[in-house]
Amino acid sequence: MLRYLTAGESHGPGLTAILEGIPAGLELTQDHIDLELARRQLGYGRGGRMKIEQDRVKITSGVRSGYTIGSPITLNIANKDWKNWQHVMAIEAGAGITETITQPRPGHADLAGGIKYAQRDLRNILERSSARETAARVAVGAVCKQLLHRFFVNVISHVLEIGGVCAKHPELTPQEIMEAAEASPVRCTDKAAAARMMETIDQAKAEGDSVGGVFEVIATNLPVGLGSHVHWERKLDAQLAKALMSIQAIKGVEVGLGFETSRRFGSQVHDELFYNAEQHRFYRKTNNAGGIEGGMSSGENIVMRAAMKPIPTLKKPLSSVDIISKKPFPAAKERADVCAVPAAGVIGEAVVAFELAQSMLEKFGGDSLEEIERNYAGYMEQVEKF
Amino acid sequence: MLRYLTAGESHGPGLTAILEGIPAGLELTQDHIDLELARRQLGYGRGGRMKIEQDRVKITSGVRSGYTIGSPITLNIANKDWKNWQHVMAIEAGAGITETITQPRPGHADLAGGIKYAQRDLRNILERSSARETAARVAVGAVCKQLLHRFFVNVISHVLEIGGVCAKHPELTPQEIMEAAEASPVRCTDKAAAARMMETIDQAKAEGDSVGGVFEVIATNLPVGLGSHVHWERKLDAQLAKALMSIQAIKGVEVGLGFETSRRFGSQVHDELFYNAEQHRFYRKTNNAGGIEGGMSSGENIVMRAAMKPIPTLKKPLSSVDIISKKPFPAAKERADVCAVPAAGVIGEAVVAFELAQSMLEKFGGDSLEEIERNYAGYMEQVEKF
Amino acid sequence: MLRYLTAGESHGPGLTAILEGIPAGLELTQDHIDLELARRQLGYGRGGRMKIEQDRVKITSGVRSGYTIGSPITLNIANKDWKNWQHVMAIEAGAGITETITQPRPGHADLAGGIKYAQRDLRNILERSSARETAARVAVGAVCKQLLHRFFVNVISHVLEIGGVCAKHPELTPQEIMEAAEASPVRCTDKAAAARMMETIDQAKAEGDSVGGVFEVIATNLPVGLGSHVHWERKLDAQLAKALMSIQAIKGVEVGLGFETSRRFGSQVHDELFYNAEQHRFYRKTNNAGGIEGGMSSGENIVMRAAMKPIPTLKKPLSSVDIISKKPFPAAKERADVCAVPAAGVIGEAVVAFELAQSMLEKFGGDSLEEIERNYAGYMEQVEKF
Amino acid sequence: MLRYLTAGESHGPGLTAILEGIPAGLELTQDHIDLELARRQLGYGRGGRMKIEQDRVKITSGVRSGYTIGSPITLNIANKDWKNWQHVMAIEAGAGITETITQPRPGHADLAGGIKYAQRDLRNILERSSARETAARVAVGAVCKQLLHRFFVNVISHVLEIGGVCAKHPELTPQEIMEAAEASPVRCTDKAAAARMMETIDQAKAEGDSVGGVFEVIATNLPVGLGSHVHWERKLDAQLAKALMSIQAIKGVEVGLGFETSRRFGSQVHDELFYNAEQHRFYRKTNNAGGIEGGMSSGENIVMRAAMKPIPTLKKPLSSVDIISKKPFPAAKERADVCAVPAAGVIGEAVVAFELAQSMLEKFGGDSLEEIERNYAGYMEQVEKF
Repeated sequence: MLRYLTAGESHGPGLTAILEGIPAGLELTQDHIDLELARRQLGYGRGGRMKIEQDRVKITSGVRSGYTIGSPITLNIANKDWKNWQHVMAIEAGAGITETITQPRPGHADLAGGIKYAQRDLRNILERSSARETAARVAVGAVCKQLLHRFFVNVISHVLEIGGVCAKHPELTPQEIMEAAEASPVRCTDKAAAARMMETIDQAKAEGDSVGGVFEVIATNLPVGLGSHVHWERKLDAQLAKALMSIQAIKGVEVGLGFETSRRFGSQVHDELFYNAEQHRFYRKTNNAGGIEGGMSSGENIVMRAAMKPIPTLKKPLSSVDIISKKPFPAAKERADVCAVPAAGVIGEAVVAFELAQSMLEKFGGDSLEEIERNYAGYMEQVEKF
Repeated sequence: MLRYLTAGESHGPGLTAILEGIPAGLELTQDHIDLELARRQLGYGRGGRMKIEQDRVKITSGVRSGYTIGSPITLNIANKDWKNWQHVMAIEAGAGITETITQPRPGHADLAGGIKYAQRDLRNILERSSARETAARVAVGAVCKQLLHRFFVNVISHVLEIGGVCAKHPELTPQEIMEAAEASPVRCTDKAAAARMMETIDQAKAEGDSVGGVFEVIATNLPVGLGSHVHWERKLDAQLAKALMSIQAIKGVEVGLGFETSRRFGSQVHDELFYNAEQHRFYRKTNNAGGIEGGMSSGENIVMRAAMKPIPTLKKPLSSVDIISKKPFPAAKERADVCAVPAAGVIGEAVVAFELAQSMLEKFGGDSLEEIERNYAGYMEQVEKF
Repeated sequence: MLRYLTAGESHGPGLTAILEGIPAGLELTQDHIDLELARRQLGYGRGGRMKIEQDRVKITSGVRSGYTIGSPITLNIANKDWKNWQHVMAIEAGAGITETITQPRPGHADLAGGIKYAQRDLRNILERSSARETAARVAVGAVCKQLLHRFFVNVISHVLEIGGVCAKHPELTPQEIMEAAEASPVRCTDKAAAARMMETIDQAKAEGDSVGGVFEVIATNLPVGLGSHVHWERKLDAQLAKALMSIQAIKGVEVGLGFETSRRFGSQVHDELFYNAEQHRFYRKTNNAGGIEGGMSSGENIVMRAAMKPIPTLKKPLSSVDIISKKPFPAAKERADVCAVPAAGVIGEAVVAFELAQSMLEKFGGDSLEEIERNYAGYMEQVEKF
Repeated sequence: MLRYLTAGESHGPGLTAILEGIPAGLELTQDHIDLELARRQLGYGRGGRMKIEQDRVKITSGVRSGYTIGSPITLNIANKDWKNWQHVMAIEAGAGITETITQPRPGHADLAGGIKYAQRDLRNILERSSARETAARVAVGAVCKQLLHRFFVNVISHVLEIGGVCAKHPELTPQEIMEAAEASPVRCTDKAAAARMMETIDQAKAEGDSVGGVFEVIATNLPVGLGSHVHWERKLDAQLAKALMSIQAIKGVEVGLGFETSRRFGSQVHDELFYNAEQHRFYRKTNNAGGIEGGMSSGENIVMRAAMKPIPTLKKPLSSVDIISKKPFPAAKERADVCAVPAAGVIGEAVVAFELAQSMLEKFGGDSLEEIERNYAGYMEQVEKF
């Protein structure tokens, strides 16, 4: 069983995650995690804060001499800007905070959270609902990716759409998609579309507005049979949908052809089955199912897409209401990101990696890498003989 | 804490669900559940089996004299056709089953499940992966709906799209949508579109093909503040996405504007906030967020859509491979449903109702209806005073 | 992940359990479960009801042709006496129940449950709190035992103490203990003590009183390394303590020497370690730890004891208070068991078997018996080479 | 839902806990937690390390200006001795650790953990299995106690037995017990027994041996109806037994009379029920049940005891076997605690406090202290009117 908790406010001392259930014997370095944290901070359309942070993880448990030892892993990411917020965000009483936030921003957790938790200083909500939290999830996902790599599983992402500009779906291998995405400021493999996406971002910025988009996550080399058809919450697609939908600002999730499947006849949707006698392997020539059938991995690449709404903090004012005075006010903010879709793809990879690592451990059991690899190899042989 | 397990094979003796955590004192009758079971069996485009089944629930625990008593509720739904399957599906050994299924159908759990569970008679997979199981979930959802009704929450659904035919989005109240949907053979409020949907279904049937579609689930009157922004898996949208994606054949899920949000500028997406001083209530004039912001219910209607792929059992053959001989064969089946989207909407209501009931109980605690209603009333007053 | 829910009232139609997570390919027959159900109904000191019931399980899902198929297993046990209770325990409204129970019995869930669930007919509590429910758990445990047998694990029990009469601790192998216990009316291996235990039971019966006692559960052949030291709720002893304490009327649980360890010096408690070079195996000559060290199975037999309080329903009256009139009354009941300790041991085996099966599946993963056995064998080889 | 994870090795940088689910609006200071951490470090019979540590908590999330805000709370406790262990316990690779531990100590997790996790440097096991981890749990428990205090619930403990020396059971109020225990070097209210306990500790120390003992945890003022009779793992006694048994070195747990109940006739065990008309309250004159009946709090004090085995690290050698050479060696250690029972009582309070806080939140729901207090008050009125 793999599980994790994250904690930390956006302008507090930092973020912390505890990841419990990673087997012993996995090579793990802070550098690897930092690389993923850096990927999350890139992308055309980000505001100034990203440059301030330059996130670095600090591992304080569960790893010794570069290898996991089976105990819970603590991942800390300091908030670099904390020194400027120590008064406002003081943990201790007596700081005498005088300035409270009473103006909820449309499209944010502010109002619902304030009511739910009976907080009339909305900073007490927005500090935690902020997407800053996703840095902790990216760190967790980076550890999970390390585990998955041992089983040849890669989780990558790229951007398909920003502000209505659609990329052509790439005719590339996942490896090529990854490389092209990493080289693009908007993490898009279609250079012409990427240029138009950036124009749209510029336009939104000029108008004090923001844009969302769609990213795709692809996981390769998963063994057939992760997840299960026997009970609803064990279905792999259901777990992945939850993980992706839990990312801040995500409003839609689809697997394989997704919504498009509802527009085609069945004979144009379902992937026919073939057998490769040399490789002792069933396969499909199409992957409309996105690698999941009956709630289980089919052995084909897992392909999922998520739709991100535009960032709700705008320079262009939206009408809102002060929670104390009940008077309307124009909700606007000067400095902010205009588009976070490229980063969201990286977060998408992380949450998908966690779910897949969890599914692998459920299927293969084991407490040490050695044991899991042995169980995995045994199953792969069983699959071949099926 | 509310939870449930379902069990049962498609052609076994029947389905069983145990629902644990429903408070004491809720009026509950089998008739109410049967009504929902009947709704699941309707819809233009269904094959013959639906008529055979005519599902009826039998409650065998947790209810006394028409009221819940706090203990787990057992819901049994007999498979009416069981008498014809007693030999093939015998529980006991020694039945001497000779006919095994070795031909996996594309688009089904058959192959992945057979490999995962090391079963070479694929009946052992398809009996459980079948959408027959959703009858148990509809029964569970019916109990949850009864609970939600006590808090004025209704969960309804309607069909927006079948086989590429789109309905106009209705300018109706949820109550009107429900009534119009119930009166339509395809559960669609747009009569003209409904007619074309049925034509498409007829055409698919004539061609030995199948169609999918999109349904929408709407939940009304939820209090603000269900779910939470503080941890990823407590987010209401994430939980609902998981529930909807876990329904057989669902390939996409969206909240509010969903994928459309990624095509608009932020100022065209985020719902502005207003205050109604007479009703002491914050509100929005639009509901692009679909009733969920920051992972919490906003107080507006919850609106979610799910995309269902076409039924994968086709008369028109798809290529597949026998798992024993490894020889290709044409996967085809004579008698089958052509379209199950109207029924899927009813299942969607059920799984959403479960998640919402669960969220209500988490927020309001309580072991008796009396207690939960008191806690609810106290919170509603707190909300009003916020 | 292995989990189960049980449902059912003591005088309702019957009990139901759904057990989810048992791998495919396990041979399973109703006879085997019935044998365990019968063992639960034996024992000197039981009242008349046990003879009425003669429990038989009926499996209605998850098993086909004598083998599990990986899907949830439904276990039904009819209440034979239901025909006489159909009016009082009617599920439907309108039965016009006139007689309510308003007199809580000391030592039972009646009063606390009535208050918690706001039920003024205490039958609505006592029907579920009754130890009748344990029949469902014994059925679940019987399935788990079947799984454990495939890994040579046996879970047995015997009675060590009844009403203050202590048996000598047997110098026998677990196999011999089991045989001797099964042959004894009080499931005690010490014949002289058993005779005195029965005298004590007779005396209690004559006085309208009741007695409790202590039973011991032993699990043999478990591999080293189930459970874990890395997080508190993954500790095997913690899980087993919860399971045993959850049995109705259990008030104490201990592992190995248990409370006695607190009376000895450390050098008289801790089991020294030795190595058998021929068998490539670490071992201990003593087993004061009861087979669990650091929250993990040590490879020695797991030995746990539980203390059961006397049955609280007495012929001899205890003072109580009517919940409506608030007037005192003498709580007394004519027909009842005097001692249920022998049966409690059988229930203890069942709940221990579930926890151990769960731990095995967590350690070895796997979806089919074939896969788990392969993973197990690989680990056992690893253990040997350590 | 309240939950937590702890992390951290005994000689690593420090311990971390994330506690998720504490409502907003609870006053919380680091001082309060430090007080509990200090209590854990006291007690006659401790070795030198306790003085080195002088634990202090650092909160880094979930609290602002002295009040909780509903988000996860991070609790950090630095290991003061870390500076001396940075090389041996380095997180990063390349430290070139040359000294490995290959000699498992009897009575510890060393051997089972080494085999399970395939670690041949046993430091990788013992660093996490160490009771040092309990500092994190005491911190978590301190937060839970703060919450419980708002509902007038106190959780205290005292020592009843050390090395076979038994204290007289005090005829004192819980408040008096707490005060007397805090004033005693062995946390025992019976001064004469305490003196003999210290003599026994001295004797054990002189002989290079160690002693265990028994402590009792008492929780006062809990409302009736926490936990539940309806499902086994919701029973309060089962949850508390798990929590207590999960503490390092605990081998037995009992509620109320515990094992003694099995030696008495029922009429001498079950607590008779009475009604106090002035206070509108059912009560008992005895509390043999230890405040839990039918898996629910009865409204009387919760009383549980746990048996701790002697510390397994002895100066006096025990036989063991090197895991590499397979040669026997005498397991002995110079500097170590001789008795940790007084501290274990403090840890017992902490784990009990967590379970009770969790039960309170499950019963009363709520996201802010204001809301929970309102729900609680409503229930207390309902109880009074029952």
